[in-house]
Amino acid sequence: MSQKTWGGRFSGDTDRRVEAFTESISYDKRLYRHDILASQAHALMLAEVGLITIGEAQKIVVALNEIGQTIERDEMKFSISLEDIHTHIERALIEKLGDLGRKLHTGRSRNDQIVTDVKLWVRDAIDELDSLLMDLQKAFVESAERERDVVLPGYTHMQRAQPVLAAHYFLAYVEKWARDRERLADTRKRVNILPLGAAALAGTSLPIDRQSVASKLGFDRIAANSLDVSSDRDFLIEFVFDLSLIAVHLSGWAEEWILWTTTEFYFLELPDAFCTGSSIMPHKKNPDVLELTRGKSGRVIGALQQLLVLVKGLPLAYNRDLQEDKPAMFDAFDTVSAMLELAAPLVRQSKLRRESIAARLEDGFLDATTLMESFIAVGMPMRSAHEAVGKLVKTCEDRKCRLVDLPREMLEEFVPGRVDEVSRVLGVANTLKAFRSHGSTAPAEVEKQLAGWKERLG
Amino acid sequence: MSQKTWGGRFSGDTDRRVEAFTESISYDKRLYRHDILASQAHALMLAEVGLITIGEAQKIVVALNEIGQTIERDEMKFSISLEDIHTHIERALIEKLGDLGRKLHTGRSRNDQIVTDVKLWVRDAIDELDSLLMDLQKAFVESAERERDVVLPGYTHMQRAQPVLAAHYFLAYVEKWARDRERLADTRKRVNILPLGAAALAGTSLPIDRQSVASKLGFDRIAANSLDVSSDRDFLIEFVFDLSLIAVHLSGWAEEWILWTTTEFYFLELPDAFCTGSSIMPHKKNPDVLELTRGKSGRVIGALQQLLVLVKGLPLAYNRDLQEDKPAMFDAFDTVSAMLELAAPLVRQSKLRRESIAARLEDGFLDATTLMESFIAVGMPMRSAHEAVGKLVKTCEDRKCRLVDLPREMLEEFVPGRVDEVSRVLGVANTLKAFRSHGSTAPAEVEKQLAGWKERLG
Amino acid sequence: MSQKTWGGRFSGDTDRRVEAFTESISYDKRLYRHDILASQAHALMLAEVGLITIGEAQKIVVALNEIGQTIERDEMKFSISLEDIHTHIERALIEKLGDLGRKLHTGRSRNDQIVTDVKLWVRDAIDELDSLLMDLQKAFVESAERERDVVLPGYTHMQRAQPVLAAHYFLAYVEKWARDRERLADTRKRVNILPLGAAALAGTSLPIDRQSVASKLGFDRIAANSLDVSSDRDFLIEFVFDLSLIAVHLSGWAEEWILWTTTEFYFLELPDAFCTGSSIMPHKKNPDVLELTRGKSGRVIGALQQLLVLVKGLPLAYNRDLQEDKPAMFDAFDTVSAMLELAAPLVRQSKLRRESIAARLEDGFLDATTLMESFIAVGMPMRSAHEAVGKLVKTCEDRKCRLVDLPREMLEEFVPGRVDEVSRVLGVANTLKAFRSHGSTAPAEVEKQLAGWKERLG
Amino acid sequence: MSQKTWGGRFSGDTDRRVEAFTESISYDKRLYRHDILASQAHALMLAEVGLITIGEAQKIVVALNEIGQTIERDEMKFSISLEDIHTHIERALIEKLGDLGRKLHTGRSRNDQIVTDVKLWVRDAIDELDSLLMDLQKAFVESAERERDVVLPGYTHMQRAQPVLAAHYFLAYVEKWARDRERLADTRKRVNILPLGAAALAGTSLPIDRQSVASKLGFDRIAANSLDVSSDRDFLIEFVFDLSLIAVHLSGWAEEWILWTTTEFYFLELPDAFCTGSSIMPHKKNPDVLELTRGKSGRVIGALQQLLVLVKGLPLAYNRDLQEDKPAMFDAFDTVSAMLELAAPLVRQSKLRRESIAARLEDGFLDATTLMESFIAVGMPMRSAHEAVGKLVKTCEDRKCRLVDLPREMLEEFVPGRVDEVSRVLGVANTLKAFRSHGSTAPAEVEKQLAGWKERLG
Repeated sequence: MSQKTWGGRFSGDTDRRVEAFTESISYDKRLYRHDILASQAHALMLAEVGLITIGEAQKIVVALNEIGQTIERDEMKFSISLEDIHTHIERALIEKLGDLGRKLHTGRSRNDQIVTDVKLWVRDAIDELDSLLMDLQKAFVESAERERDVVLPGYTHMQRAQPVLAAHYFLAYVEKWARDRERLADTRKRVNILPLGAAALAGTSLPIDRQSVASKLGFDRIAANSLDVSSDRDFLIEFVFDLSLIAVHLSGWAEEWILWTTTEFYFLELPDAFCTGSSIMPHKKNPDVLELTRGKSGRVIGALQQLLVLVKGLPLAYNRDLQEDKPAMFDAFDTVSAMLELAAPLVRQSKLRRESIAARLEDGFLDATTLMESFIAVGMPMRSAHEAVGKLVKTCEDRKCRLVDLPREMLEEFVPGRVDEVSRVLGVANTLKAFRSHGSTAPAEVEKQLAGWKERLG
Repeated sequence: MSQKTWGGRFSGDTDRRVEAFTESISYDKRLYRHDILASQAHALMLAEVGLITIGEAQKIVVALNEIGQTIERDEMKFSISLEDIHTHIERALIEKLGDLGRKLHTGRSRNDQIVTDVKLWVRDAIDELDSLLMDLQKAFVESAERERDVVLPGYTHMQRAQPVLAAHYFLAYVEKWARDRERLADTRKRVNILPLGAAALAGTSLPIDRQSVASKLGFDRIAANSLDVSSDRDFLIEFVFDLSLIAVHLSGWAEEWILWTTTEFYFLELPDAFCTGSSIMPHKKNPDVLELTRGKSGRVIGALQQLLVLVKGLPLAYNRDLQEDKPAMFDAFDTVSAMLELAAPLVRQSKLRRESIAARLEDGFLDATTLMESFIAVGMPMRSAHEAVGKLVKTCEDRKCRLVDLPREMLEEFVPGRVDEVSRVLGVANTLKAFRSHGSTAPAEVEKQLAGWKERLG
Repeated sequence: MSQKTWGGRFSGDTDRRVEAFTESISYDKRLYRHDILASQAHALMLAEVGLITIGEAQKIVVALNEIGQTIERDEMKFSISLEDIHTHIERALIEKLGDLGRKLHTGRSRNDQIVTDVKLWVRDAIDELDSLLMDLQKAFVESAERERDVVLPGYTHMQRAQPVLAAHYFLAYVEKWARDRERLADTRKRVNILPLGAAALAGTSLPIDRQSVASKLGFDRIAANSLDVSSDRDFLIEFVFDLSLIAVHLSGWAEEWILWTTTEFYFLELPDAFCTGSSIMPHKKNPDVLELTRGKSGRVIGALQQLLVLVKGLPLAYNRDLQEDKPAMFDAFDTVSAMLELAAPLVRQSKLRRESIAARLEDGFLDATTLMESFIAVGMPMRSAHEAVGKLVKTCEDRKCRLVDLPREMLEEFVPGRVDEVSRVLGVANTLKAFRSHGSTAPAEVEKQLAGWKERLG
Repeated sequence: MSQKTWGGRFSGDTDRRVEAFTESISYDKRLYRHDILASQAHALMLAEVGLITIGEAQKIVVALNEIGQTIERDEMKFSISLEDIHTHIERALIEKLGDLGRKLHTGRSRNDQIVTDVKLWVRDAIDELDSLLMDLQKAFVESAERERDVVLPGYTHMQRAQPVLAAHYFLAYVEKWARDRERLADTRKRVNILPLGAAALAGTSLPIDRQSVASKLGFDRIAANSLDVSSDRDFLIEFVFDLSLIAVHLSGWAEEWILWTTTEFYFLELPDAFCTGSSIMPHKKNPDVLELTRGKSGRVIGALQQLLVLVKGLPLAYNRDLQEDKPAMFDAFDTVSAMLELAAPLVRQSKLRRESIAARLEDGFLDATTLMESFIAVGMPMRSAHEAVGKLVKTCEDRKCRLVDLPREMLEEFVPGRVDEVSRVLGVANTLKAFRSHGSTAPAEVEKQLAGWKERLG
């Protein structure tokens, strides 16, 4: 008798190359714990509805625990001719329990079983990512606190724009990770719906109780339409999209910090333990972790595209193509969780190079916009004030000086009699003090935000 | 004086080719209503906090209304040298109101203004898509009702699997559109947060009241960190991801219905009004709308990819690259809403070819799985039952007959004394009646689902 | 002393998690043969120019051979703290030869070394793919020959269009594989240029002879600019693009054959050995290999996108991001070569279901276009002929008959006195005989093409 | 009678929304010149083989010229109910010539006609891109010449690595554009094969002469298999891939130059005419053209992805999905050609900030690798030399000094008696002079490369 679960109507064996091409055990063995959990819940339910006895169910539960331990101890022999994790576990069960093992698959199909396993796995993965993201938020909040008094140039178009408090800078990323967590939480709602019981694709004629299985496995509710279930991978693609946005956020941060470690910026000192050197250039200390974080974002984006291509144009219901969903998802998850695991300690161990930042802080007219706003405050229309300060900046560029260095008369010309008022904001320190809007880099505002985040993150 | 909003510090004009390369007016003019709304709220707030007078604010509001009407009537002259919709409207305002027009841009930047406009637009777009999706759900529910008594073959791997009621089939898609609506609703929460007031990137020294603007524009709350706002396009990418999944759902449905219109399947009759012919082959009636629906999914997926590439590796805060977000988003939205607008009437006007479907319904062993379940019901372990029915199917294939045609003795061999019980499910009609699990194609279950959807969709 | 090749300027060890995040040995060990070949050529050249002695070079060559055998026998202990294959091999060399081993890396960097290894590997991979594609062409040519007398319906828009000879059908794919081979050959030209000698990024002050290395390794010429080399991955991305088009071609063919195995088409019989069954449905025989071939195309397309994202926005020269090029490339190659390896035997062992095809061949008006052409041949303008036949088809649809069944008078009305001439082409067999254009399905044309391909493929 | 080319077998009109959804005239009108050229060649051939008279062919040629002029003068009225450019032109021809116009479409289909048009268009597009790329190469060569004596820091991992001549830097990009041109040339070979004559999909029964059409239109040869032609978009996807790599090259260069314009790098002065300012910050001068060049690369990559998704899983032969190929291709081409058109003048008008570059040139140990090589030259094994210089660098970092500032004894310790020899290379100027390998930044090597490029580019 064939080892396959489906040998009855076939004559002859599967081609060995076909087994290698179609197997999934090499990656779905990772789901063994979830598969066992789901099978145990299924077995107990089968007993509840009388398809097997209570005693049989208990034997199955115990045997599955043992099989789980065998796998845990790495003593299960995996073989591609047994296709997938379900077949391996069922085969082991039959070896242990004989005909009783042959009853487990009653009222279910591998199609709904695998989706159940994957949903259980994704639920765990989301919870793990949520912890990692929260830890990363904490690392940024700690940096916000540690570096709170440092003033950084803020950039748009990579050109110096306005000064920002380092705490404001770090909290900007905390907001991004917060949105990432929200998206994962929303996805989790759609993950936590039980597919099991869809059976082959039309449901079953056996008296199964899906609600009981849902309760046992902690699902919020049960999926309503068996055909839909048999074809649905929305939750998985949405999950990988969430991962893509996290990866993209990390890529931007990594890019920024790579720049900050250049000889030219020299804003940041990375810990030696997070850098590597060159095989040929003895002086190099390279920000490899950041570079790979930037580069690996492509991997996650690639996985998302793979999944969208995968499901494009597939008619109902299950198609074998869908098996390819897992390698992409696992790879995307592994990549992002590795990035997050390293990002937090790297942030914690990196230090702003305060002297170097301060040395050039007055470069780049970071006070120009606030000067314009002070012109507005004394009554000049905004557009005229913009034009006026634009001209003053041009003069500075020609003279190679700062706004604060301009002769008083030049300001007098634009705001007669109000020069004292308007020039009060010149210089980065004064400009910074002038901010006041909600959400701005105004020191009081930033303190409020920082306090809020510390409370929220415990 | 330069027509630009930023000419002060520049000597010489912008290269004409550069104007053409960097302009956005050709597509962001589409945002004019939202830009005007946001500017009116901004002007009223400026009056509330004393930066302009109430009278000035009212004049601005009125003038902006007039400008809106000018654009509505297609009488605004657009020019790439005025870059974008904001500059066009501000320029028109200054022409109308002189120095007062020059005050409007107080305490805001184009960076936060454009995101505000886009968020207002996306909010509307989501609401429109929600209506379209609901209408599509209704069309599928109507088909479910109209075709409820038709029995279809259900497929996995494109091979005949089990019978399903047509109503069950149509409701499977209703579930998919429901998830699409949920995702949009979740995205809407993240869209509906006011960015305005982030100003350049660090906030402003002027006493603006962001909460007031948020209330006026119906935003749920205000964004907390100005640097984050100045770099954030998460909501827009998430929106385009939602569109991608809708497109992918539509592509699968389109594929299926294309197959159903082939000479070979011949399950479906499309209305002539939704098909086209061939320039060379006089007999052709092609399912073009469905084919383009399938093909255009690539366009939406491409837009998503464009956006992820766009933001990959961008440091804080605003970078001009981000301007490219809108063409991708508009194209994705236009594509999906056009698909949805056509899908609903196409579904309503298409008819199942009942005779043709029925003629081959007994092909393909649609009752085999239920026969296996009846073996289980009389006590055979599932795996053994599977093996047994597998062998019966093989015999049928050799004899070119159906399961119901097998001699009684062949069943007797496997389930001695229980043949009457087990053979009760043979034949598609009997098989269908046997289903009972929640979410299955059991007629009573399907009626319940159908009633539920009719109630929910009003 | 650190095991790293670059420990000198570092204090403290690399974080273990960083080692795991940045390692490449888990996948670049696959390059060991190419790395050894390149190192041997490098060592011999170092001797030629006097940087080491001839005796030293010979010792290195021998020791590298031994190391290669160690790896071949799977006796090398790999460790992530040794980062990559280069470090493993160099470390092994130093263990064997002491200070002499420390001389090998003279005048080269890992940056140019890895690209050299990858280029050698890609060159082999291209040659292997070329063989696989040629074998696939042969399989299609064999099918063309075996099934040459079968007439198939040809489709556009998935609707029956015109009849085609099965041989014509099979040769269409042979053309596609031919283009795939051409593209690979063009890529190979750009691969076969030696990067080694670019050293760190600016070249070297040592008197190396790059031309000599190029000759030893069979490269056509040497890369001209060291900075370019240190940043270039064009050849690799182009290679993965070639793979993507192959995958897409395979996906279309797989889709078609999946359809052909449905109960509805029933055109094709797949060998049991290339199909699998269902865990729940005992009657299923699923075309899994074809489905996975279709689905895995997403994997290759995803890899291409990953690579394009990877290099987007990277400044000169080498950035660590580039390390991520290999997993994507290996995965794309492995996927496509596995697809090709299975496609050829699957094609060889599949058979057209001639009876079933023939039974419905007269359905779908496959002769309508040729009838129109016969109207043109007797003098009717093309557009009028199209209109005329369109009306005849409509009549047939109303009467549920074929064109050949229409009463003679109906044709007479359009082509008075010429009915015999025009009706000569009615019926699929007659239509087929009427074709004559170059590249058409005309039997003589197809024979010519078939003969041509048999000759070209030996 | 319907305006459509295919109305005969249809009852009732096409739904207006369907016309809007399926039309292509809004973008394929761009192909009118190529469509007319192809139709003229087709008409002349029809006369040659006797399907129309010579006089008729001449009338068609003349009328098509007139129609072309009408379109040129923007006097053609376009309507979506006429679907595409072919129908518009054929309709205009029939209006001019009556029944003679109805003969033009003899022996061809829109399927092969559109591919012919597109191939003619792509051929032109490739030639235009080749010119643009050559001009860009010239701009880089001019910069190489103008800035040839400037020494730049070369980077790996964005960390200072070794010094490079500015000319060497500029020529690195010339190599990249050269590869882009080669790829386009290879694609052109596959473009330049005539599809016309494939007709509907099986060829035609009419005695057309495809070879004659090919000669008239300058195609190298004719496509061999009509089914293949009717489904093939390889050439178009390959073309968009070529565009993607060009875009990616441009994105990296843009990123680099954006960095070079920061306050921190301050390596480059962009012309005012290629920058824009800020609506709120009066001091800003932003490198918008470069940012958009970087960002628009996503657009091209997105187009490629769209196309691969489009053709994934499509069975033979023509499917209407394929119509979506053109918007993606046009957008990708327009984007890349606009980038190239701006890149060349931007490069020509930008200047290196020599003083600023020179001021920090001795930072970052650019001479460390060459010092290591000088250790090797006096007999130290490479790995030991690397370790030694690594330690010297570490000492410098602790002392905040340069290698040249270290006390002689420290070198003496490592290379006893050879200090004069090895320290000869210290300092960037000396290091630079030491290079000698082929393809390196050695001044003589760079001059040779520069001379070579000047000759090749005329």
